[in-house]
Amino acid sequence: MSANTKPLERFYSVIPAGGIGSRLWPLSRADAPKFLHDLTGSGQTLLRDTWDRLVPLSGEQRVMVVTGRAHRAAVEQQLPELADKNVVLESEPKESSAAIGLAAAILVRREPDVIIGSFAADNVIKDQRGFRRSVVEAVALADAGYIATIGMNPTEPAIGFGYIHCGKALEIPGAPSALYVDKFVEKPDLATAKGYLKDGNYLWNAGMFISRADVLLEQLGQEQPELLAGLNELADAWDTPQRGAVVDKVWPGLTKIAIDYTVAEPAAASGRLAVVPGDFDWDDVGDFAAIGKLHSGGRKKDLAILGENARVLADSSSGVVISQTGRLISLIGVNDIVVVDTSDALLVTTTANAQRVKSVVDALKLSGRNDVL
Amino acid sequence: MSANTKPLERFYSVIPAGGIGSRLWPLSRADAPKFLHDLTGSGQTLLRDTWDRLVPLSGEQRVMVVTGRAHRAAVEQQLPELADKNVVLESEPKESSAAIGLAAAILVRREPDVIIGSFAADNVIKDQRGFRRSVVEAVALADAGYIATIGMNPTEPAIGFGYIHCGKALEIPGAPSALYVDKFVEKPDLATAKGYLKDGNYLWNAGMFISRADVLLEQLGQEQPELLAGLNELADAWDTPQRGAVVDKVWPGLTKIAIDYTVAEPAAASGRLAVVPGDFDWDDVGDFAAIGKLHSGGRKKDLAILGENARVLADSSSGVVISQTGRLISLIGVNDIVVVDTSDALLVTTTANAQRVKSVVDALKLSGRNDVL
Repeated sequence: MSANTKPLERFYSVIPAGGIGSRLWPLSRADAPKFLHDLTGSGQTLLRDTWDRLVPLSGEQRVMVVTGRAHRAAVEQQLPELADKNVVLESEPKESSAAIGLAAAILVRREPDVIIGSFAADNVIKDQRGFRRSVVEAVALADAGYIATIGMNPTEPAIGFGYIHCGKALEIPGAPSALYVDKFVEKPDLATAKGYLKDGNYLWNAGMFISRADVLLEQLGQEQPELLAGLNELADAWDTPQRGAVVDKVWPGLTKIAIDYTVAEPAAASGRLAVVPGDFDWDDVGDFAAIGKLHSGGRKKDLAILGENARVLADSSSGVVISQTGRLISLIGVNDIVVVDTSDALLVTTTANAQRVKSVVDALKLSGRNDVL
Repeated sequence: MSANTKPLERFYSVIPAGGIGSRLWPLSRADAPKFLHDLTGSGQTLLRDTWDRLVPLSGEQRVMVVTGRAHRAAVEQQLPELADKNVVLESEPKESSAAIGLAAAILVRREPDVIIGSFAADNVIKDQRGFRRSVVEAVALADAGYIATIGMNPTEPAIGFGYIHCGKALEIPGAPSALYVDKFVEKPDLATAKGYLKDGNYLWNAGMFISRADVLLEQLGQEQPELLAGLNELADAWDTPQRGAVVDKVWPGLTKIAIDYTVAEPAAASGRLAVVPGDFDWDDVGDFAAIGKLHSGGRKKDLAILGENARVLADSSSGVVISQTGRLISLIGVNDIVVVDTSDALLVTTTANAQRVKSVVDALKLSGRNDVL
């Protein structure tokens, strides 16, 4: 499978920057999605953090961003180094199979032996060297023809993530820690998650996929031949003057489906999926409880305060406060509280209810109150 | 003691409209004190409710309001019928002995046998007839030379009120339910309050005092001769062109002290204090827990929502939300919560912590953040 150049020289990073992050409403909005926020206190957005993490692996000229048309200006402002050829704009959201598949189809036409790695725009990783070590192993797996993922060691029985059931060790040069994947499993209930944690052979699915672009597309086509045909039609026109017309014709009809179903699960079933157990910290900052934990260093009874002009007066309270208004926020005797104060919407909940925030967004959608979404 | 006219014809209502209501911050402010809010959903302010309750007893021309200079316009807007002669403006707050004492001293000069009744501007009473029955009894006691109060039957072991320890029955015509007061007691701790409730001979001090003006002033003078001298100097000048000059000279030096200490407690000790057990509902709406209770009809698990343009999306939450901004307020899984949303300050606490709100105001004062007080 290997080509003449070293595998890492053929590596291309893909950042699908989509998804609003409904569980972070009213901080995350349609026009200010999660990846455009600084949730870590790093002083820059999660998208910029992601860029900074990937550039040392693939180089500035080899990072492609797939995002919505509405976010083009914000993305380019965050990533002034991003090359025009590496901006893929979606006219409407079509989920990860279309987003990553289109990137693969475009890139494989430019470089037939390209290896792509897709990484969400809104994850938090502190240990950059650990991350790079795992990606290098995954690239070696991709070079050997596998579809590789990087699984994270679960630190708690999370119900917000899918899990990877690891199988026996693979013997691939350059990927000493790699394992076969027996199965991809969906977000479990709490009892099942506790069982996974105890079992020890389960990793969190962090949504990182590394493979040769042609291998990924071939796997995708087995499950979704029509979707693959659409992606190929788009990619054929991409670097030509016909791009706009073909996008208008093809994109709206693409099937919306997560890449877990079209690539990861079938690849696992056929023994083509390999996993590198990630030896680094990782958080997808999926809800306000995660933000609170991130800022308190995991300590309970701490109050995390985010917001440049936050003015908080707290009296023996814990949880997380996110201030976007500069108003004085006073907390008295509230524990594990979540307060998100924005100019047109206020959320008050608890860290234990953080996963339920999405239901508010759903209710607002149903009632047509799109002004605050 | 009785004069030629019937006691009720000599009755004058006094409304001390002072006090910000710190426990209701950030709803109540220096420039928008508690009595200028509609906390009952009646559609009018507590001050106007108080006026409407007293006019049937004393008539429009016989209601005096003692308030701060800053509130003059708001008070006159609320009470357009209020006669000029019945507006007493304080240049700075001096507590209830000065406020009620000055009203008494002014009125006794106009009508030597006047009976005054002072009633806070921010209480909530639904049973108007029951209230009037008790005041009529108290006026009969005042006519007989007693200083009368109306005590409320405690419905819970409240720690936010003072208590009245009742003694034996008085035998005064027109006041069949009146009792001697053995003792005025300060706000108790919870264990003591529970004892009072069990004992059955304790009533809540609702801060209502009814007596001849001359009797009240004489009692006040026994405890605070200097304060009385100051009040007399003010009253002598009140209906003359010298009022302004004397106010500027005398008012700043008046002792700040509650009328409980200068009149009620010493009168109780000398057997001059009588109490009419009030046979009507009463609430001083002292904190957000009280507001919640008032609006939920006492039911737990209800969510009380106040505010003309309130937009609240609540999912199995209970407590009280007060909205002044029209922002969307979303609550998820928070119980007994208190959320007060104003344009420049936000409070999040619980009903159990409602009494601690004052501590925020104290902290803000200490830190010089008067912009939000």
